[in-house]
Amino acid sequence: MRRSAGRQAPAFIHRRIPTFELLSEEGLQLVEDKADQILAEVGMEIRDDPESLRLFAQAGAAVDGVTVRFEPGLVASLCATAPAQFVQHARNPSRSVQIGGDAAVLAPTYGSPFVRDLDGGRRYGTIEDFRNFVKLAYLTPWLHHSGGTVCEPVDVPVNKRHLDMVAAHLRYSDKGFMGSVTHPSRAADSIEMARIVFGAEFVDQHCVILGNVNVNSPLVWDATMTGALKAYAAANQAPVVVPFILGGAMGPVTNAGAVAQAHAETLVGVALGQLVRPGSPVIYGNFLSSMALRSGSPTFGTPEPALGSLVVGQLARRAGLPLRCSGAFTSSKIPDGQAMTESAVSMQAALLCGANYILHSAGWLEGGLTMGYEKFVMDLDLCGAAHTYLDGFHLDDDQFALDGFHEVGPGKHFFGAQHTLRHYETAFYEPALADNNSYEQWRDAGETSTEQRAAALVTRMLGDYEQPPMDGGIAAALDEFVERRKASMPDQWY
Amino acid sequence: MRRSAGRQAPAFIHRRIPTFELLSEEGLQLVEDKADQILAEVGMEIRDDPESLRLFAQAGAAVDGVTVRFEPGLVASLCATAPAQFVQHARNPSRSVQIGGDAAVLAPTYGSPFVRDLDGGRRYGTIEDFRNFVKLAYLTPWLHHSGGTVCEPVDVPVNKRHLDMVAAHLRYSDKGFMGSVTHPSRAADSIEMARIVFGAEFVDQHCVILGNVNVNSPLVWDATMTGALKAYAAANQAPVVVPFILGGAMGPVTNAGAVAQAHAETLVGVALGQLVRPGSPVIYGNFLSSMALRSGSPTFGTPEPALGSLVVGQLARRAGLPLRCSGAFTSSKIPDGQAMTESAVSMQAALLCGANYILHSAGWLEGGLTMGYEKFVMDLDLCGAAHTYLDGFHLDDDQFALDGFHEVGPGKHFFGAQHTLRHYETAFYEPALADNNSYEQWRDAGETSTEQRAAALVTRMLGDYEQPPMDGGIAAALDEFVERRKASMPDQWY
Repeated sequence: MRRSAGRQAPAFIHRRIPTFELLSEEGLQLVEDKADQILAEVGMEIRDDPESLRLFAQAGAAVDGVTVRFEPGLVASLCATAPAQFVQHARNPSRSVQIGGDAAVLAPTYGSPFVRDLDGGRRYGTIEDFRNFVKLAYLTPWLHHSGGTVCEPVDVPVNKRHLDMVAAHLRYSDKGFMGSVTHPSRAADSIEMARIVFGAEFVDQHCVILGNVNVNSPLVWDATMTGALKAYAAANQAPVVVPFILGGAMGPVTNAGAVAQAHAETLVGVALGQLVRPGSPVIYGNFLSSMALRSGSPTFGTPEPALGSLVVGQLARRAGLPLRCSGAFTSSKIPDGQAMTESAVSMQAALLCGANYILHSAGWLEGGLTMGYEKFVMDLDLCGAAHTYLDGFHLDDDQFALDGFHEVGPGKHFFGAQHTLRHYETAFYEPALADNNSYEQWRDAGETSTEQRAAALVTRMLGDYEQPPMDGGIAAALDEFVERRKASMPDQWY
Repeated sequence: MRRSAGRQAPAFIHRRIPTFELLSEEGLQLVEDKADQILAEVGMEIRDDPESLRLFAQAGAAVDGVTVRFEPGLVASLCATAPAQFVQHARNPSRSVQIGGDAAVLAPTYGSPFVRDLDGGRRYGTIEDFRNFVKLAYLTPWLHHSGGTVCEPVDVPVNKRHLDMVAAHLRYSDKGFMGSVTHPSRAADSIEMARIVFGAEFVDQHCVILGNVNVNSPLVWDATMTGALKAYAAANQAPVVVPFILGGAMGPVTNAGAVAQAHAETLVGVALGQLVRPGSPVIYGNFLSSMALRSGSPTFGTPEPALGSLVVGQLARRAGLPLRCSGAFTSSKIPDGQAMTESAVSMQAALLCGANYILHSAGWLEGGLTMGYEKFVMDLDLCGAAHTYLDGFHLDDDQFALDGFHEVGPGKHFFGAQHTLRHYETAFYEPALADNNSYEQWRDAGETSTEQRAAALVTRMLGDYEQPPMDGGIAAALDEFVERRKASMPDQWY
């Protein structure tokens, strides 16, 4: 099995295949022009944040109340100081990841209030669920990042969750992670906890934490998000700037319009971070979805967002920015055929468009409302496959197996050929959950579904989990910080 | 719903997106050189078929016993007379399909001895099952072709099945189809039945039937397959020339070797057809799979064949030949998460590589041993999505929705915008089986799985089926032919 669990897992994927270039240069120029036109004619609102309005006014934008308009080309020029790639350092240096360039970093799903498992069904997530998903992401070789809000721990007060979540990422994993964005003070707490682990001076010069900030699409930035964005940028940490467009609701139903809007919204966020701290790291984010027009429900893993993501990838490369896309989207409530059809289509789009950071790579169910245990490990099979797919097609002499053809000749089998034996263990990627046995073997083993095998794998993985070591002084300092911050404020439950 | 069942379905897909070019020109030249080297140094065996050996010897190949070797470049030059594209005429002219160029034609799965449905489980296929799958393929707007052996009707004697199968395609559908290849005389019967429907003169000048012929990989053509291939080519009908390579068994475990072998094997078959009748239509076929190295079982929908197919697509285009790929592969026994993960990956590879004819687009289970009713309609959701995906990303002014942005402005919803209303019905592809409702709606409706919804859809479709009209004289002539041929030989059951 290629890169089996026995070997050291790669810290991230180096992409060796081309990106899929859907549009021509002329087409891309047109999309950029239309994004500029939206920003010049309609503009964006930046609400309840005079500081950001002032920064944009100083940079040459036309500020009218809370509406900010930009001359064509202005926003792109304000993004020029952002790095094309950077390293997010993990507390285990061998887990540090490159973000941008030829790198693809896979991270678990983010933000679900519910969790689901085969035995217990759907229920609200808890901090125990949160820690379980951090452990699963730590254990698998196919995810390179611990993610952020892997589920909402609704048993912890709203204003204290971020402390337990960041602590869980830091204690139960040694991979990179994302901090809180739900309030500027929570972003600040997240960064402060990173400083305890990495050292304040190191953090000021290196990226050690990401913060996923959403545009309030269409064309609005609210103060919660700009506040978090500015906190991360000021600390030289990387905001992930993500429009949130469900076509027909937060944007037009047509792909070209949705992508132009997304480009405009993203660049304004990137520009804001650069105005706060030029040269600070940032990720160009992408979140496109479609709509079931009979019901108005969002749909996922459909062909329109897959096409849109290809264009967004091209725009991010032209802007010289690392790209975030989404992985295993679905609107299915359970990890069934619909779920995996949609997730495979969605993940494939992320791989083809050249995404450097793929959030929601594992676990997503029900339009993001539910994080599924079985779905998580089912998605891991696709994440593993991505390693082989992005590694591409090799053309060295040994791959052509001419010695094998001479040895085997016409009409014989390659099973025992020297060439086969030489490549036996590394030849093919083997997904953990696929049943490739004969019908009779499968029947006699109980006719299991993928979901059932997945449930068994989750149990096995969590049983095997061992916590990565952490310096005792640092662990104590983290605990002290969390306790002190929790004690400083009353519980809020909404 | 885009292209909903209410509208006239497209006869086939016009591809408007680029193909995915994985290798450079230099890489492709190297693969071609290695294929040439295999044919020059190892050669192919053509067994029990002196006529084909004679044709190749006359064309300049070195024939030594049953081994045929080709100087580099010879086989490719013998393929030069094959058309880059042609039309396969259907008995309903509006269903005729272009094969090659920018066309993508989707056809159901081929060759399974077993069928499966949710209620009855797995059992041997019958002629009733065969007719059901012909009806389903006829009914759906997402398949453009009736396929061939949609399942093995094992309740009909082996030597008479082809008569009932071809009759079923001709009577229960009006889309294009494939004939028998299991014996040269059965190929001849298939073509004869096409002549009854289309007229002998028309058939001599137009393609009306395909025949799927497999190489006995590695590097062997047997007389059953060359016999069928020659019968189709002599009648100016189109053989589909398909190597059958399970990596590690019928070819090397390494992708480059498998693809070079496939290219060599395919071109020899194409060349044979052109020697029989220069200019006759032919399709360059592709069938790559991988192996579970612990068990030796074939695996499907894995990343290695997906990459290999991309290269095969490039080779077919360089050879100037229409390309056949495979769609919804899986080794799963049931239409669960594994099945749809693998099928989506496999279908996506076919779409990206530029396949013109995608066999096995719907129904495949268990490595091809089983044709699934529910799987069939689950795969149709991906076939439908392919129509939107291959249609690409549109850049006309209306798609950019500038009027919508002006109307809606920042922070408002697009639901009721004029632009949304204008595009409402055509904006998004909507899969038939996806449940996009809320959790509560889904729960209250019985917590159905995709497979359960698929079973209901199959029942509904078969209940709605109406046979397409056929001229009474032609129908009688077909019946007479089938009866006469059946009466001319005793039943054979193996």
